[in-house]
Amino acid sequence: MRLFYHSEIRESDVEVVLNSEDSKHIVRVLRMKNSDQLYLMDGKGFRYMASIIDANPKKCKVRIDNQEEMPKAGKGLHIGIAPTKNMDRTEFFIEKAIEIGVESISFFFSENSERKNIKLERIERIAISAMKQSRKFHLPSLHLLKNFNDVLSTTMDQKFIAYVPTQTTEYLFSKIKKEGDIMVLVGPEGGFSEKEANRAKEAGFDWVSLGKERLRTETAGIVAVQLMNMKTFI
Amino acid sequence: MRLFYHSEIRESDVEVVLNSEDSKHIVRVLRMKNSDQLYLMDGKGFRYMASIIDANPKKCKVRIDNQEEMPKAGKGLHIGIAPTKNMDRTEFFIEKAIEIGVESISFFFSENSERKNIKLERIERIAISAMKQSRKFHLPSLHLLKNFNDVLSTTMDQKFIAYVPTQTTEYLFSKIKKEGDIMVLVGPEGGFSEKEANRAKEAGFDWVSLGKERLRTETAGIVAVQLMNMKTFI
Repeated sequence: MRLFYHSEIRESDVEVVLNSEDSKHIVRVLRMKNSDQLYLMDGKGFRYMASIIDANPKKCKVRIDNQEEMPKAGKGLHIGIAPTKNMDRTEFFIEKAIEIGVESISFFFSENSERKNIKLERIERIAISAMKQSRKFHLPSLHLLKNFNDVLSTTMDQKFIAYVPTQTTEYLFSKIKKEGDIMVLVGPEGGFSEKEANRAKEAGFDWVSLGKERLRTETAGIVAVQLMNMKTFI
Repeated sequence: MRLFYHSEIRESDVEVVLNSEDSKHIVRVLRMKNSDQLYLMDGKGFRYMASIIDANPKKCKVRIDNQEEMPKAGKGLHIGIAPTKNMDRTEFFIEKAIEIGVESISFFFSENSERKNIKLERIERIAISAMKQSRKFHLPSLHLLKNFNDVLSTTMDQKFIAYVPTQTTEYLFSKIKKEGDIMVLVGPEGGFSEKEANRAKEAGFDWVSLGKERLRTETAGIVAVQLMNMKTFI
């Protein structure tokens, strides 16, 4: 059954009006009619079965038939990343990170960042679409931080920064532990500055390597998420 | 120093003429002049230092000053993948797979493939660009196979197919061994058919899971490459 996103469904809601984009898609493209059924999700873990009661192509109205709370993966994976110069790459990263299963993504700008702004609405659209596609029901929280210091104030059990000053910097996978939330920071194209890496260390972030290869920012992000994800298998 | 790709440099070559695209870029965009130096790579492991002797924007000629053979990572990672319907996704996969470090990519078409063709020249361009970007000097071999059976005839030490018939299908990472070449097959959007999975099993491919999440084809491909890559750390 088709699945649509609606962020503002309250427990007391019996009827809900869908936004114009979804309404048009439902009525004009899918040619759904009154009493046809669909699923709604709110990104907060609930899935609602609903029936169309007014197939209006601008504001399609549905009646909620039942609601179900979906289990949260709760793997506790968090990533902080500097947006890439080319936004397509960051968007691809977001999609992949959500598929693999992150709980939050924090964007920050650092000394070597070529990009100094990012549109949170656009990011949210990508995230919602990735969540739907991968059949998840919890939208990861998305944070836009003004500067690098803000990301350092996080209270996670395991904190890492992908910064490789020497050949012997330890591989992330060999440092992660099964229990507790985990966060990895990934820098911009030019990497973290030494000053930033030191500041992170003072804030309790361990320096780690993501492997022997030279990776682009978005690849480093995907690899970091995948390595964190392995804590659920160790 | 700038790095350019030229696939056909012979050991006896003293002078080389670059293609029109690189020539234009070197002379018109970078405004390089006679006796300026650049690097050439042939994708077969050699890096050449060269000096411009005719800054012609259509056929820039260089003299080879010296050649150096670069070490091969030789991690023995191979992947077979069904191209995605949307080629952008496959191209992104190729880039990421090369960054992480595959030795070969085989494209095959399977029962559920929505896409039944792929342009090898386009793929090669993407691969060359990813190789340059990630400062590698060996171009992975790219294979275009007519059908699924062809990919099964491979002679690798470790062979896996990402096919999850039950909850207890083992995780790829727990099955990989440090020694020997390794290949993983990743299916198209609709997954492998049962028949294909059985045929693969007969050909010696173990069924494995890439994790608990529902992943798109290209994400499954990236995750598979990253999991194979971990064999270099175990």
